[in-house]
Amino acid sequence: MAEVGYVGLGVMGSAIVRRLLAAPHDVTVWNRTREKAEPLLEAGARWAASPREVAEQSEVVFTMVTNTAAVRAVTEGPDGIIAGLSHGKVYVDMSTASPANTRELAALVAESDAQMLDAPVSGTSITVDQGKASIMVGGDEDAFERVKPILEAIGPKVFHLGPSGSAVTIKIAINLSLAVQMTAFSEGVLLAEKSGIPRERAVEVMLASVIASPMVAYRGPLVLGHPEEVWFDCHMMQKDLNLALELGRELKVPLPTTAVTNELLTAANGMGIGELDFAVLFDVLAAMSGVQTSVQV
Amino acid sequence: MAEVGYVGLGVMGSAIVRRLLAAPHDVTVWNRTREKAEPLLEAGARWAASPREVAEQSEVVFTMVTNTAAVRAVTEGPDGIIAGLSHGKVYVDMSTASPANTRELAALVAESDAQMLDAPVSGTSITVDQGKASIMVGGDEDAFERVKPILEAIGPKVFHLGPSGSAVTIKIAINLSLAVQMTAFSEGVLLAEKSGIPRERAVEVMLASVIASPMVAYRGPLVLGHPEEVWFDCHMMQKDLNLALELGRELKVPLPTTAVTNELLTAANGMGIGELDFAVLFDVLAAMSGVQTSVQV
Amino acid sequence: MAEVGYVGLGVMGSAIVRRLLAAPHDVTVWNRTREKAEPLLEAGARWAASPREVAEQSEVVFTMVTNTAAVRAVTEGPDGIIAGLSHGKVYVDMSTASPANTRELAALVAESDAQMLDAPVSGTSITVDQGKASIMVGGDEDAFERVKPILEAIGPKVFHLGPSGSAVTIKIAINLSLAVQMTAFSEGVLLAEKSGIPRERAVEVMLASVIASPMVAYRGPLVLGHPEEVWFDCHMMQKDLNLALELGRELKVPLPTTAVTNELLTAANGMGIGELDFAVLFDVLAAMSGVQTSVQV
Amino acid sequence: MAEVGYVGLGVMGSAIVRRLLAAPHDVTVWNRTREKAEPLLEAGARWAASPREVAEQSEVVFTMVTNTAAVRAVTEGPDGIIAGLSHGKVYVDMSTASPANTRELAALVAESDAQMLDAPVSGTSITVDQGKASIMVGGDEDAFERVKPILEAIGPKVFHLGPSGSAVTIKIAINLSLAVQMTAFSEGVLLAEKSGIPRERAVEVMLASVIASPMVAYRGPLVLGHPEEVWFDCHMMQKDLNLALELGRELKVPLPTTAVTNELLTAANGMGIGELDFAVLFDVLAAMSGVQTSVQV
Repeated sequence: MAEVGYVGLGVMGSAIVRRLLAAPHDVTVWNRTREKAEPLLEAGARWAASPREVAEQSEVVFTMVTNTAAVRAVTEGPDGIIAGLSHGKVYVDMSTASPANTRELAALVAESDAQMLDAPVSGTSITVDQGKASIMVGGDEDAFERVKPILEAIGPKVFHLGPSGSAVTIKIAINLSLAVQMTAFSEGVLLAEKSGIPRERAVEVMLASVIASPMVAYRGPLVLGHPEEVWFDCHMMQKDLNLALELGRELKVPLPTTAVTNELLTAANGMGIGELDFAVLFDVLAAMSGVQTSVQV
Repeated sequence: MAEVGYVGLGVMGSAIVRRLLAAPHDVTVWNRTREKAEPLLEAGARWAASPREVAEQSEVVFTMVTNTAAVRAVTEGPDGIIAGLSHGKVYVDMSTASPANTRELAALVAESDAQMLDAPVSGTSITVDQGKASIMVGGDEDAFERVKPILEAIGPKVFHLGPSGSAVTIKIAINLSLAVQMTAFSEGVLLAEKSGIPRERAVEVMLASVIASPMVAYRGPLVLGHPEEVWFDCHMMQKDLNLALELGRELKVPLPTTAVTNELLTAANGMGIGELDFAVLFDVLAAMSGVQTSVQV
Repeated sequence: MAEVGYVGLGVMGSAIVRRLLAAPHDVTVWNRTREKAEPLLEAGARWAASPREVAEQSEVVFTMVTNTAAVRAVTEGPDGIIAGLSHGKVYVDMSTASPANTRELAALVAESDAQMLDAPVSGTSITVDQGKASIMVGGDEDAFERVKPILEAIGPKVFHLGPSGSAVTIKIAINLSLAVQMTAFSEGVLLAEKSGIPRERAVEVMLASVIASPMVAYRGPLVLGHPEEVWFDCHMMQKDLNLALELGRELKVPLPTTAVTNELLTAANGMGIGELDFAVLFDVLAAMSGVQTSVQV
Repeated sequence: MAEVGYVGLGVMGSAIVRRLLAAPHDVTVWNRTREKAEPLLEAGARWAASPREVAEQSEVVFTMVTNTAAVRAVTEGPDGIIAGLSHGKVYVDMSTASPANTRELAALVAESDAQMLDAPVSGTSITVDQGKASIMVGGDEDAFERVKPILEAIGPKVFHLGPSGSAVTIKIAINLSLAVQMTAFSEGVLLAEKSGIPRERAVEVMLASVIASPMVAYRGPLVLGHPEEVWFDCHMMQKDLNLALELGRELKVPLPTTAVTNELLTAANGMGIGELDFAVLFDVLAAMSGVQTSVQV
């Protein structure tokens, strides 16, 4: 049982905290809006007045926030996490943020005699709830070993990837395929449908084929209709594709299918359906093909 | 034990004939160059002088040839398959050819009081050898039921999809994802590699993630080096993408990621590496990124 | 005054015949539907019963038809132009058709001891009416010199480009830029408009800039509204882009911006606005951006 | 004769200062490295110790720097331009920077009781030298009227476009077409060349056609070889395309041809030829086509 801190209680962060509480661990939390913390406080978590206090009260402190700017907001300044770190503590960022920023932050954290790991989670909040999430970790290997038991309470597959920033880089490298695979799948479904094969049948057969990655398997059926809960909307996906495209420019790697898919996400936003899961890439292409879908464009 | 005919003895056709012989079935074969038939003749197949004769001597006659033009070449004219069909026979085309052509041919076959099915195979010759190939079938359902036991001798997963042309359409819809998924995977690997993660490690982690479709799982490792045997080269893949793009234009379905990937296959040809498996899409992007690979561009 | 034949009396062909009659030349015409010939017959042209007869009655016979298949339809067979050619005659194809087909036809024409030139026209029917069209010519230089005075009656800028097929190849190389330039222009106008600059003002300023090719200058204003008469619809443009993309595959030249623009033309068709001038590429992107235009998508 | 300040003495800034001196105006200058100012100081310009001092000594102060960050660097802080502004002064930014940043800066400038205009220049340093540059201006109309005579000393075509940020937005909207037009032109030249038409001839004919924008006319010939002086390299062009793509995301305008061309610029960088004028887009496509050019890839 460890003293664990958690900053950022969105859908994903909350799911992770639930698993930490069940481990059980002592969990101190903070979120920009306290409201979202309530169910967790009822379940046994403690509230802290700032990210700094979370860090002060924990051996290991996690963040899971929207983007690079949000990571900076909760780590920097007098109330930020870094101000609360000290010798032996480990700061673990689970956000998908800029790898360059991760490396800068890791250097700042080291100045406090603490250590930072980047540890993005693969999967959705559902995967976390089911205890099936996998976690990739970048950064110092000793720090990784110390934190590993806590990470395993979140998900069973935990592996160390390399130096600081490497885990978040791989996450970005993986996530661009999510969006591109979804687009290609949608192109295929529309071809089949306009050839006279019912959409349901096309999805069924394609999900039984060699292109059915786990991602295509769980997201493909969304072309038949969206559930109420949104897993990963176009804005979130576009944030990740932008990280990929920035990295590509910086490292001089052309990313043609990512770039094209990114513009289709922009179209989703332009058509007013960007709040839905990025599987609406199908609906964007459907609108361009004159095909009706469950989503009103 | 049925009288079966087989026209087109490339790598894939030969693998299928081996399974038909092992079933066992009586197999009569024909190929444009007789040389390729020799190993099969030694294994018990019989040679016929023309595609027409193959059809005359068989209850069920198969074709597996390169493209739409090749299908026409072995079916039309006085020595073609259609001239050898008669009441009750079934002609099964396993090629990936134009669905419009399939429907035209099916109508011609019906005039001979026979029936035609389109039955593209999913997988490679290795999958066939292992008895794991899956076969999608389009066309008349009665004809399908009659041919089904023979198809099951080739691969265990045989399913009827819909009217004539629907199976080959789905095959095309699936195959475009093969190429696009490979491109997106390559974009990710190059990002990781140029970030300092060894290519082998990047591949390993990405193959353990949600983007690892069966296709990515067996083709992804080719970014580390190509085997001597080529599974599916850029010309073959480009043929399939062209079928997709033609269908897209005809049916008014825009296929942006397919179109972009197709131009990268053209680049593979332009760079002189189009004879390799289409996994060289990685090497095309690597050349554009200034990254060395095992393939000399 | 020469004996001139003209096959193919669409908007462009009719404009050219009007100039030939005004030269004046003796003009014999044929068209798939006679109706379109009527105004020209009233203006002095003579009707022939078939393309062959046109060729028989002329020293120089022109064609201007929709595509490669249409060129074959009026040249081949017992009633085709080739059947009516003989020593010394020149056949001039003004269509934008496949360069490979042009070279094949030129060889057939040579067998009749006649000669073939490919001579696509740059510009629209309006440019022809104003006597400003320019004509590029491929094929034998002597034949070119003989035909040159007649071509100059159509437009003042006539120049010989190289061997058979070279003029139509350049036409294709130019036409792909028409479509891509229009797309890029539209992207810019939409950026400006959504930034708060009135569309009219954005068009005006951009037409005064270094990107204002003659094409952008006359087609750019169509983003403000389409005239009743359609100059060059999406189907016609897509035919030309397909010729470019086929040539690119054959010659191993990747054409990424052409490929992407081609899919947007497919989207125009899918959205039901493909009958309009290809400047509707703007309206396609506008629909993807949630911007209203004069065209109902 | 006005008291004019100029900050940023690259190739373009220096050309403009030469014209201001010739007008004649009193010109005070500052540059990050003083060395570049020497020829101008010899020609009569005065050196100031900081951007702030330039602003203090001038009625109108200009900046022309690399990007948004550089604009901030010379305007903010105790030594920045804003610290040197006061009632009645006008600050004119000629850089191509983020329009959002322009609007923020304009608000800060207004707090000093001064006014800011964005005034990007269309053309190259050669155009400026020849007195042919055109200048688009965004911002307050009164401030524009006061500055107009000075702008006219730089180039004859000066026009007011709209509120703050609108001129730089239009500049971005225009510049994306520069890159895309160059790509499409290159695709066409390569098609023609691989068809057997000499590259020089293809360029000549295409420059005589309707696609020959002024940009294509002066940059097109670079596909035959690059001059020693680089006009606008891939890094500069990519900076502008990134501004376009960011604006596109923010405003929800998909920019497919811009996005694809941007990845080709990344490829230019990856291939090690990004220091050349962005006309090397031709050489990138040539390398992908297996065609030799004057540029060593």
